[in-house]
Amino acid sequence: MKQVAIGIDLGGTSTAVGLVDQSGHVLIDDDFVTKDFQDFRDFINKLHEVIDKLYNQVKENQEIELCGIGIGAPNGNYYRGSIEFAPNLPWKGILMFVEELKKFYNIPIVLTNDANAAAIGEMIYGGAKGMKDFIVITLGTGLGSGIVANGKLIYGADGFAGELGHTIIRHNGRFCGCGLQGCLETYVSATGLKRTVFHMLARFSYPSDLRDKTFNEITSKMVAEAAQQGDKIAIESFEYTAKILGQKLAEAVAYTSPEAIFLFGGLAQAGDILFVPTKKYMEDNLLRIFKNKVKILPSGIPDQYAAVLGASALVWAEIERLKQ
Amino acid sequence: MKQVAIGIDLGGTSTAVGLVDQSGHVLIDDDFVTKDFQDFRDFINKLHEVIDKLYNQVKENQEIELCGIGIGAPNGNYYRGSIEFAPNLPWKGILMFVEELKKFYNIPIVLTNDANAAAIGEMIYGGAKGMKDFIVITLGTGLGSGIVANGKLIYGADGFAGELGHTIIRHNGRFCGCGLQGCLETYVSATGLKRTVFHMLARFSYPSDLRDKTFNEITSKMVAEAAQQGDKIAIESFEYTAKILGQKLAEAVAYTSPEAIFLFGGLAQAGDILFVPTKKYMEDNLLRIFKNKVKILPSGIPDQYAAVLGASALVWAEIERLKQ
Repeated sequence: MKQVAIGIDLGGTSTAVGLVDQSGHVLIDDDFVTKDFQDFRDFINKLHEVIDKLYNQVKENQEIELCGIGIGAPNGNYYRGSIEFAPNLPWKGILMFVEELKKFYNIPIVLTNDANAAAIGEMIYGGAKGMKDFIVITLGTGLGSGIVANGKLIYGADGFAGELGHTIIRHNGRFCGCGLQGCLETYVSATGLKRTVFHMLARFSYPSDLRDKTFNEITSKMVAEAAQQGDKIAIESFEYTAKILGQKLAEAVAYTSPEAIFLFGGLAQAGDILFVPTKKYMEDNLLRIFKNKVKILPSGIPDQYAAVLGASALVWAEIERLKQ
Repeated sequence: MKQVAIGIDLGGTSTAVGLVDQSGHVLIDDDFVTKDFQDFRDFINKLHEVIDKLYNQVKENQEIELCGIGIGAPNGNYYRGSIEFAPNLPWKGILMFVEELKKFYNIPIVLTNDANAAAIGEMIYGGAKGMKDFIVITLGTGLGSGIVANGKLIYGADGFAGELGHTIIRHNGRFCGCGLQGCLETYVSATGLKRTVFHMLARFSYPSDLRDKTFNEITSKMVAEAAQQGDKIAIESFEYTAKILGQKLAEAVAYTSPEAIFLFGGLAQAGDILFVPTKKYMEDNLLRIFKNKVKILPSGIPDQYAAVLGASALVWAEIERLKQ
């Protein structure tokens, strides 16, 4: 009997659901448009329908046991199993997500934010197998993070720990959507990189194809490609992004002294142009006792299913926790 | 039979040794001058002699069982039981402290830095009893910190985690002894407060008794007393210290979302003049999800024996860990 878990990646645009085994193989998956369901109950009913459909399809061909459901969601609270005040979802206020889903399934159901799910995914299926102390930074539209210490994810007293995207890296720096100024996310993220490109276009006079793009047109992939072709504005932009990220990672090392820091998501795919200078700037800003110890690594999770795998990994981590 | 632990507070000036029971009562204690022992072996022999003397003196009057020895020391490494490159101790390089002491005692011997010992002390005897997630900040000549998450102190991959004193709070800020610039410790510590007083004496023209003191004369106690008497320079200096500390604590909350943050040591005794504005500045810099949740508290450990108690608490924490 093969043990499987359901992983759910709940995003503002779409919701992906996958049935995953303990080795991290996605046996079947599906997705649907989140905002088609303006009523939260309708959404839960749709989710129930999709889970049952996937489960029954796999069950036709092999013996499986569904061990639990894991959900990665914006502003997800692990302790309460709730989604709280998520700005990009159709439903407002506090949603008791796990409680609703428990009406259909009497198995462990675990919810946390997407970056925490990514960290658990890295630990169970990815490059952090066997590590007790590491950090995962997710670089998407924004910047998320999951911190593992003593072999356990840090949820904190309230379930919301690990919000490095909203720690300050420049006093009185860039304005952030959260109301603060100088947050890491305003510099290091797909959006942050765009802001930096425009800063560099203003600062330097180098010719650049990026001068023909509007702010809304530019993507981080476009900037990475321009940098690879030698575009000086793009190169300066990555250098600056790496400088800010490196400084912040040095700070993170002083907090929890991890064995490795994993970079995950779109911007991380830029590769050496981001990783090499980030490592250099991190080392430059480390205390002597921390120098030349901490690895900066790309995520070891296959990108296509990363979020669903992370969510499913929550189930295996929870089963392990319940055993203790 | 009463179970007792030895707590050792190893400092650059003096070394204190105490015999402590599980409720945190110091049954007997003694100290000696650290730098009288320029040879590390001589120091270990002296320590052995003091421990035996204290133990035998108590044993004359009551039945006791010595359960372990805990040491709080600068640059203490929990995993290796070593003191590594401590700038203010007479011995250079890496000292295998626990290994040396193990030659005399076949019981658990645990070593970590002073701030981590203070955090364990707070958890075992002090205000953090029953808390799973909290941070202790020690404000002395420098600034140390110990971070507890999921009920366990974070030692990190290398045993050196929790160095908040050397995280940057102002990019290109004050020069720090560690070689970096803008470290928290250069603003928030007894020395940092002195630096701030001189900054304020330069910035403002308010009359102040502090204008008659040299940099080397001023103590943080003097500044606290001046502030209580309405000295504007002293008041501005505390306000600025609180602003910097509050901003850093908001950052720390985003990392591990603690239930409480404890302030410990000389500067913390300034009371409301530090605590009230620190809380305000922390709240101003928190993400919405973290607001009005985190307490800032004075240490619950009696000051006279704080360091020895913290060190002795390492033993009870270690015995608990070994049981798991």
